[in-house]
Amino acid sequence: MDIEIAKYSGYCFGVKRALDIAEETLNKYKKKVNKIYTLGQIIHNRGVVEGLSKKGITVVNSEENITPGSILIVRSHGMSPVVLKRIRAKKVKIVDTTCPFVKKAQDKANFLSRSGYFVIIIGNKEHPEVIGIKEHIENNNFAVVEDIKDVKNIGKKEKIGIVVQTTQTSKKFKSIVSKILEKGKEILVENTICSTTVNRQNSTRELAKRVDVMIIVGGKNSANTTHLAEISKNCNTITYHIENYKGINLSWLRGIKKVGISGGASTPEKDILKVKKLIEKL
Amino acid sequence: MDIEIAKYSGYCFGVKRALDIAEETLNKYKKKVNKIYTLGQIIHNRGVVEGLSKKGITVVNSEENITPGSILIVRSHGMSPVVLKRIRAKKVKIVDTTCPFVKKAQDKANFLSRSGYFVIIIGNKEHPEVIGIKEHIENNNFAVVEDIKDVKNIGKKEKIGIVVQTTQTSKKFKSIVSKILEKGKEILVENTICSTTVNRQNSTRELAKRVDVMIIVGGKNSANTTHLAEISKNCNTITYHIENYKGINLSWLRGIKKVGISGGASTPEKDILKVKKLIEKL
Repeated sequence: MDIEIAKYSGYCFGVKRALDIAEETLNKYKKKVNKIYTLGQIIHNRGVVEGLSKKGITVVNSEENITPGSILIVRSHGMSPVVLKRIRAKKVKIVDTTCPFVKKAQDKANFLSRSGYFVIIIGNKEHPEVIGIKEHIENNNFAVVEDIKDVKNIGKKEKIGIVVQTTQTSKKFKSIVSKILEKGKEILVENTICSTTVNRQNSTRELAKRVDVMIIVGGKNSANTTHLAEISKNCNTITYHIENYKGINLSWLRGIKKVGISGGASTPEKDILKVKKLIEKL
Repeated sequence: MDIEIAKYSGYCFGVKRALDIAEETLNKYKKKVNKIYTLGQIIHNRGVVEGLSKKGITVVNSEENITPGSILIVRSHGMSPVVLKRIRAKKVKIVDTTCPFVKKAQDKANFLSRSGYFVIIIGNKEHPEVIGIKEHIENNNFAVVEDIKDVKNIGKKEKIGIVVQTTQTSKKFKSIVSKILEKGKEILVENTICSTTVNRQNSTRELAKRVDVMIIVGGKNSANTTHLAEISKNCNTITYHIENYKGINLSWLRGIKKVGISGGASTPEKDILKVKKLIEKL
């Protein structure tokens, strides 16, 4: 059986950077502070988060659980500046690992809003990145649009500014923007999808077209990994999304000639290689 | 046979205004100056232009033919400020009938260009409105895009500003903008299609869906009239585009139950009513 890994897969720049900062923080402060926290997972990968937890980074899901005198590592997806301000006031040291591309989307949303635009964020409503971007807008003139249906609920506006979750697919972005064009006369589109996302999506699509089965490795709660699985399915290729090698069912590969593997931005390379090794044993 | 005229058809605000200004100019200056010119047709309707010509407005196709001491009426489609400056220098009085909506598109193009955007004008390359908008851009950082194929020739740009010929169809506008989204990270879309155009197109579409045959009345060189004919054809309705009642071939209507009539922004109401009367005689 032939096995091929997508040209661009695994950790992106922003994830690598976040994990490097987390390690540095551990090395520098572990013995000096009571606790090091993240509010939510630093990246959307259970294995990695469990690894960091063993080293001393505690994941909490509510700001109330963050104790004074501790350190909060801001997750790669960014977070609300309002919440951050409250936590800082508790004498908590902040270490920010927000991905620079996410930061750009936050800044653009803030700038558009202050410039009088009604801001539309294209993205998954419940995703922490989108919630973080939303909370960088200082008024109520905004909407989050997850799919074309959501656009219908938006009235006509004089000026609309658009930003997009960094890991959205270009296809969805384009179709939603096209619909938004009906809603205003002046529309400023900031395509904040990051280039790493585009490369990863393109190489997954290219590979999916050439194989019989695609295996996408990465967190089920990872937006970008989920999009890779969608893209592969849209190529009419049998596609399985697994969190790690344990998710493989070997019966999927019986009689198959060529398998492709790709991984999301928050998937460690070793997770991808483990999947490859397991399949090679067949 | 049932006959119905589209709810919005015939002269738009900009055309009516241009013709009113032309009449005023004739009344005020005809006896005081040698000549009153337009450079190209004031509106795209042969009958109307011939009428004005009889009253004393001469259409020339080259600026060299405009003589000192005369008056130049700037056509409703607008024109190049550079050419206008040269003509003014010949001691020619300028009377401007540029449609305010076209003026807005010219100003937006100029502003976008001065703000560092690569400007894309969506429209018919040879149309005087588009040529006029283009010449309001003071550098070479622009392209005119007539259809999606033209977008392929444009390289990646940092900032793209888009304006659109006031009489384009929303459908074409949206599909081209969607393609342009691939070319840059920041895209400022100024939808300069005028509301009259949108209403006229919508009411033509709505009527075309309910009749057996549509007759579109207006200049063959009129962009907006031609678009009405396209929209009607896209409803799978048999459609004829005629310049005036003389263009009707009564065989088109044999055995037909319901006929719809619509006219472009430069089509006089009387032209539409003449078509209606001729059909009623059947």
